[in-house]
Amino acid sequence: MAQTTPNHTLTVEGWAARDPSGKITPFTFKRRENGVNDVTIEILYCGICHTDIHFVKNEWGITMYPVVPGHEITGIITKVGSNVEKLKVGDRVGVGCLAATCLNCDFCKTSQENYCDQVQLTYNGIFWDGSITYGGYSKFLVADSRYVVRIPENLPMDATAPMLCAGITVYAPMKDSNLVDSPGKRIGIVGLGGLGHVAVKFGKAFGHHVTVISTTPSKEKEAKDRLGADDFIVSTNPQQMKKATRSLDFVLDTVSAKHNLGPILELLIAKGTLALVGAPDMPFELPAFPMIFGKRAVKGSMTGSIRETQEMMDACGKYNITCDIEVVRPDSINEALDRLARNDVRYRFVIDIAGKSSNL
Amino acid sequence: MAQTTPNHTLTVEGWAARDPSGKITPFTFKRRENGVNDVTIEILYCGICHTDIHFVKNEWGITMYPVVPGHEITGIITKVGSNVEKLKVGDRVGVGCLAATCLNCDFCKTSQENYCDQVQLTYNGIFWDGSITYGGYSKFLVADSRYVVRIPENLPMDATAPMLCAGITVYAPMKDSNLVDSPGKRIGIVGLGGLGHVAVKFGKAFGHHVTVISTTPSKEKEAKDRLGADDFIVSTNPQQMKKATRSLDFVLDTVSAKHNLGPILELLIAKGTLALVGAPDMPFELPAFPMIFGKRAVKGSMTGSIRETQEMMDACGKYNITCDIEVVRPDSINEALDRLARNDVRYRFVIDIAGKSSNL
Repeated sequence: MAQTTPNHTLTVEGWAARDPSGKITPFTFKRRENGVNDVTIEILYCGICHTDIHFVKNEWGITMYPVVPGHEITGIITKVGSNVEKLKVGDRVGVGCLAATCLNCDFCKTSQENYCDQVQLTYNGIFWDGSITYGGYSKFLVADSRYVVRIPENLPMDATAPMLCAGITVYAPMKDSNLVDSPGKRIGIVGLGGLGHVAVKFGKAFGHHVTVISTTPSKEKEAKDRLGADDFIVSTNPQQMKKATRSLDFVLDTVSAKHNLGPILELLIAKGTLALVGAPDMPFELPAFPMIFGKRAVKGSMTGSIRETQEMMDACGKYNITCDIEVVRPDSINEALDRLARNDVRYRFVIDIAGKSSNL
Repeated sequence: MAQTTPNHTLTVEGWAARDPSGKITPFTFKRRENGVNDVTIEILYCGICHTDIHFVKNEWGITMYPVVPGHEITGIITKVGSNVEKLKVGDRVGVGCLAATCLNCDFCKTSQENYCDQVQLTYNGIFWDGSITYGGYSKFLVADSRYVVRIPENLPMDATAPMLCAGITVYAPMKDSNLVDSPGKRIGIVGLGGLGHVAVKFGKAFGHHVTVISTTPSKEKEAKDRLGADDFIVSTNPQQMKKATRSLDFVLDTVSAKHNLGPILELLIAKGTLALVGAPDMPFELPAFPMIFGKRAVKGSMTGSIRETQEMMDACGKYNITCDIEVVRPDSINEALDRLARNDVRYRFVIDIAGKSSNL
C-alpha cells in the first residue's frame, strides 16, 4: 500500500443507493488525488453484477451507505502516477473487484492477493486511509495501478466490462482445476446466467465437452445453438439427471440461490470437483453420501488475482470472448436492477457511463 | 475377480440382525469354499463401527437381512489358495471394508479401488457370484487375498482391529492432504470419538500441532493429557471459535450427526481443506461465504485403498498406534451397540470373537 494519506479532493459524479430501498440516484462525491502508484480512469462502461443488488439492498447486512456500486469497469487512462511504468495515458483498461490488499502476506506475494485477509473491494471497502471505496457507477475512478488490467485492442469496451467480475469469477476456478490448457474434459455449468454463459464460452474455447445444467428447459436451444454447449440437462428431470450420473469431470455451479448440492455431486466422476461461485444468503445442503462415496471435492472460489485477470483478458482477446450484454443509460439503472433481480436479462446489463455507446 | 462361481458350503457360526429392531442374535450361515485367490481367516477380534448400527437398524434403507456386520477384522490365516503368494498359514492379518472391486477400472488399476464404482463391501455387499457378503461378527472369513493386510508383530490384535476401518478412514484423508510426511502443520480434529481419537494420535505421530474441536468441554483433559492434543476448542463457545479464526491448515470432521460446516470452515486458513468422513443421514449445512471468501475446499473420503491400509498399518507398527478399546464378549454385542449409539465408549468396542482376550 502507498505511504502517505491521500487527499480526497476530486469531485466525481456518480450514482448511489442511500438506504436499503435499493433506489439508485445521482450522487456527487470525492475521490482521492491521483497518487504516485495510481492511475485515473475515465469510466466508459460498468457492468451490473448480481452482487450490486445484494449491496444496494443491504441483503448481506454489511452495506455502508451511500454505496456507489460497480466492479466491472472499463475505461481510458487519463492520468498516471510517477511510479507507474506499465500503463500510460490513453490505455484501454479494466478494474474489477480489488481495490487494495496488504502486499505482505503469502497470498499477496504469490499473486493470489484476492485471498489476502486484508483485501479491500472496489466499493463498500475501507481503503487503508480509512475512506470508504466507491465503485464504477461513476464518471471516473482513481485506482492503484497494481489492480488495473489491460484490455486487448480487438475487444469492445462495453461487452468486455462484465469480464472483470463475471468473467474472472468463472475463469479462476477453471484455471484452478487445470482446465485452461488441458482440453478434452467433460465439464458441467450449472445455471445459464451472467456467469454461466461466459463459462460455456470459456469451456468451448478451451476444448471441453460442455453440459449446461439448468432448471429451465427453454434454455436448451439457446445453450446449444447460440453458445455452443454440447449437452443440456434439466436439473428437475430425475431421468436426465440419473442418466448423467458420474459423467462429468468438473462442475461449476453459478447459481446464487440456496439449493441441494447432492444431485449435482452425483453427476461428477469419483474424485471430481464441484466449484462454487454463487453466494446465496442461506446455506447450501450438502449430503454426505455423494461426497464420501465418490471422494468428491467442493471448492469455493472468489474472483481471481490480478495476474489471473490479465491472463483471462488475454485469453478473451485470443478467442474473441466477451459477455452477451444489454447496454443501458445511467437513468435506467433502477429498471435494470429490477429486471436483473427477476433474471430478466441476456446476460448482463452494462451501463453506458460516458454516453458513447452505439448499442443503445 | 475370480473366474469360477464358488460353492458356498462352509458352515460358520456368527451373529446377525434379522430385522430393523437391530437386535443381534446367533446366526449360522454358509461361506464360499476357499478359492485359488482366497485366504481363510480364523477371526480373533472384530471392532464395532458406528456404520454397523446404521446397517442393523436399516437407517440408510439398504440393509439386506439377515445382516452379519463387522468390517474391522483381525485374525490368523488358516488356509491359503494356490495362487496366493504373499500370505501363508499362521500370518496375522486384517480385513476392512472391501470385499471385491472390478480390478479393471482406472481406480482399481491405480490402487484406489475403494472408489471403484463396482466396489462390494465386506458385509451387506453383493459378491460377484450374486451371494450376499457377511462380515466379521463371525468365527471365520473367506477373503480374496488382495483385500487382506498384514499386521505388524508388535501390535496387539484386539486394539488393532478398529484400525481396519476407523484408522484407515482418518489416515486416508490425512495422506491425501500430504500430512503423513510433512510435519509442522496446524490441524484440527472435529469430534473425539472412535475416529477422532485415532486421528489425534496420527496427527501427533506425524509431527503436527493438533487441535481438538468438540461440543463437550469435559473432553479437554482427556484430549490433552491422554491423547497428546496441543489445543482444545469448545465448538459451542463463540469466543473460542472466533479466536481460532483462520488458524488451521486442515480440519478433519469425524462427526456423524448433521451440523453446520460454516463455523468449522472459518477455522481454516484461506485455501485450507475440510475433510468429511462422517455420514449423517441428513445433509450438512454449507454456507457459501466461508467457502468463497477463503477459497476453501470440502472433500469427502471413504475408507482407503488396500495399499493405503497396509501403509497405515505399517505406520501404526512404527509409531505403536492402536485404538483405545473396550473388549466385549459376543453375548454382549447388543449392549455394546446400545452404548455406542449413546456415544458411551472410550473409544471403540471390540468383540472377542474367539474368546482369547485377557482384557475382559
